[in-house]
Amino acid sequence: MWKEIFENVRNQTPLIHNITNYVTVNDCANILLACGASPIMADDETEVAEITSICSGLHINIGTLNRRTIASMISAGKQSNALNHPVVLDPVGAGASRLRTDTAMQLLQNIRFSVIRGNISEIKVLALGTGSTNGVDAGAADHITEYCLDETVAFAKEFAHKTGAVIAITGAIDIVADSQTAYCIRNGHPMMSSVTGTGCQLSSLTSAFVAANPEQVTTATAAAVCAMGYAGEIAYARLSSLDGNSTYRNYIIDAIYRMTPQMLEEGAKYEVR
Amino acid sequence: MWKEIFENVRNQTPLIHNITNYVTVNDCANILLACGASPIMADDETEVAEITSICSGLHINIGTLNRRTIASMISAGKQSNALNHPVVLDPVGAGASRLRTDTAMQLLQNIRFSVIRGNISEIKVLALGTGSTNGVDAGAADHITEYCLDETVAFAKEFAHKTGAVIAITGAIDIVADSQTAYCIRNGHPMMSSVTGTGCQLSSLTSAFVAANPEQVTTATAAAVCAMGYAGEIAYARLSSLDGNSTYRNYIIDAIYRMTPQMLEEGAKYEVR
Amino acid sequence: MWKEIFENVRNQTPLIHNITNYVTVNDCANILLACGASPIMADDETEVAEITSICSGLHINIGTLNRRTIASMISAGKQSNALNHPVVLDPVGAGASRLRTDTAMQLLQNIRFSVIRGNISEIKVLALGTGSTNGVDAGAADHITEYCLDETVAFAKEFAHKTGAVIAITGAIDIVADSQTAYCIRNGHPMMSSVTGTGCQLSSLTSAFVAANPEQVTTATAAAVCAMGYAGEIAYARLSSLDGNSTYRNYIIDAIYRMTPQMLEEGAKYEVR
Repeated sequence: MWKEIFENVRNQTPLIHNITNYVTVNDCANILLACGASPIMADDETEVAEITSICSGLHINIGTLNRRTIASMISAGKQSNALNHPVVLDPVGAGASRLRTDTAMQLLQNIRFSVIRGNISEIKVLALGTGSTNGVDAGAADHITEYCLDETVAFAKEFAHKTGAVIAITGAIDIVADSQTAYCIRNGHPMMSSVTGTGCQLSSLTSAFVAANPEQVTTATAAAVCAMGYAGEIAYARLSSLDGNSTYRNYIIDAIYRMTPQMLEEGAKYEVR
Repeated sequence: MWKEIFENVRNQTPLIHNITNYVTVNDCANILLACGASPIMADDETEVAEITSICSGLHINIGTLNRRTIASMISAGKQSNALNHPVVLDPVGAGASRLRTDTAMQLLQNIRFSVIRGNISEIKVLALGTGSTNGVDAGAADHITEYCLDETVAFAKEFAHKTGAVIAITGAIDIVADSQTAYCIRNGHPMMSSVTGTGCQLSSLTSAFVAANPEQVTTATAAAVCAMGYAGEIAYARLSSLDGNSTYRNYIIDAIYRMTPQMLEEGAKYEVR
Repeated sequence: MWKEIFENVRNQTPLIHNITNYVTVNDCANILLACGASPIMADDETEVAEITSICSGLHINIGTLNRRTIASMISAGKQSNALNHPVVLDPVGAGASRLRTDTAMQLLQNIRFSVIRGNISEIKVLALGTGSTNGVDAGAADHITEYCLDETVAFAKEFAHKTGAVIAITGAIDIVADSQTAYCIRNGHPMMSSVTGTGCQLSSLTSAFVAANPEQVTTATAAAVCAMGYAGEIAYARLSSLDGNSTYRNYIIDAIYRMTPQMLEEGAKYEVR
């Protein structure tokens, strides 16, 4: 199944509009190219609705948020909704400041998201209005382990039901859930947390996977999460004893570039709960 | 001839002012350093005229355009014109939104450009006020092939005549033309289109080549285009079966860093039409 | 001594708030992760005081300065001062424009800095109100050599006395001085000047070292400068004849990632004057 989903990305080369932060934007562009999609970045309020209209998916990411671009996010999101394009939200750092929390809430009120992807702390802030966000990383009390997996799955399904969006919570174990079905994904490598922006890259990748598979949002999201984690495994296996997080960053994107749909089918490690 | 042009860059280490997008700006800076030039990025209206004055060339790139920086572009461009510094325009995504098309037109009206470099779709938008821009990549109907090469050369010469700028249209075959002479360049590799910002990087590189060779704008532009394409060939030859577009990005910049003027002289593949 | 300082960084994983330029911001984030710290980037005036409050250090960098973020820098700096968090200033390009010089001066008047790190031209502009800044690189007349080392050490100590900040002047020989003690550091490699943002990365790294060692600002800064230079040596030793400045960039960050406190202790080359 993962195979067909990835083939659709490679065959359709969806154009993805990204309104995202300036820290990891280059990696977001290169990972979109790596998976077979095409990126465009545009954040001025006067052009975002037009740009979104020529694309087939939109990725909104609130890292390095500023007041100028909030209106752009809402304008692009509404236009995408009007055109039935999928919209992916990455609520980077929600909970770390009132601006980020309020903006994430405002986006949820104004835009219908296909997917919301964040770490557990960020998603909890959106769902519960509280949580321990340690900057842009998950709070220590919030790590997803086997111990709390069922509880987190139930939480994700409930938030998916409430928002109508697929919820992707990424961490040591990743959860992708709609209101009925949850994928628990065990791809990835701990060293991925030493590379800035693997979460942002995954959100871009998810936008491409969902844009190319609009009728299967949950499975397309799960496939993107598996692909990213599997790329982290492939890239880790290549590292020499001198290589660190910067080379690892390159190798992760390289692994997406070289990954075939068949490889993803075989490399994906997940169970359904 | 290419050799002397590149030697001038290495010997003069021109300082290049870039007003460019936040997606590919780091690669633009590193490729300028790789070729022997020095980058400075500044986009606030209150400083751009001063910054441009201490530089020997200006690169204006409208990717991730926003209203704040349009005035900066015009201010820097006018100051560069007053000082007879070369100015290179990269009309990223012209045709994809009214903001980009209108801004490109406004820049053409207010600034005398030495070089305009884009894909065929972007250049057509500037020349004809129409064209099929698919985001930031050339539209499918617009690819330059042997079949339409003479026609595209004639178009480039005419637009060069009209604007007074050297026109660089990059694609599978690159064309660099003034009103009299066109270079058709066959360096490069298709995989370059899988790296974000190779076009932006080339525009930065062109600014350095032209700044160090102000009396030979056409040949300096052609030399930069050959150098970029040749770097793409050298970098491609290094790739292992695990390397993808991210490593390729690094190797292209590395290839510019290691390229000698003599290597460029021997590696450049072009004909004059 | 260097060993303990670096161990504190690895053990405490300080969260560092960066208000920095969009050219080198990704490398700043990755080098912070490489040393064991955690980055957050936020520059909107409405959130910077809050973000700084959850961090343990602040890095202010004026490359790609714009008027919107000056107020953010001052707000974050004042809040950090109030909380006794260390604040590091990188006055990129001070002297290249009135905006940059005036902003650097305004920051000095409003914020108490723990460390000011720049090239000699930038530091002279701050100290003397004059100097030959050639864009973002040190002016040719300003290179630190053995010949002028004692004089530069005296200058650094005096400026440290005046500002209360540790002064880090980086170049062929690096100087880290408070009013009493100066470290003259001979780590590094000339090729580091071919990588954009090694200075910015060092400023981020310094913020992490100082945040984890708030009682030893001078030695922590010297340790960060040694670490960066030593990483440049380790990375240079790995380069093949095809590798250039882009691969070198990755290897420098990799070297920080792989560097142990013990390695730093043994690799640091410095004398006290």
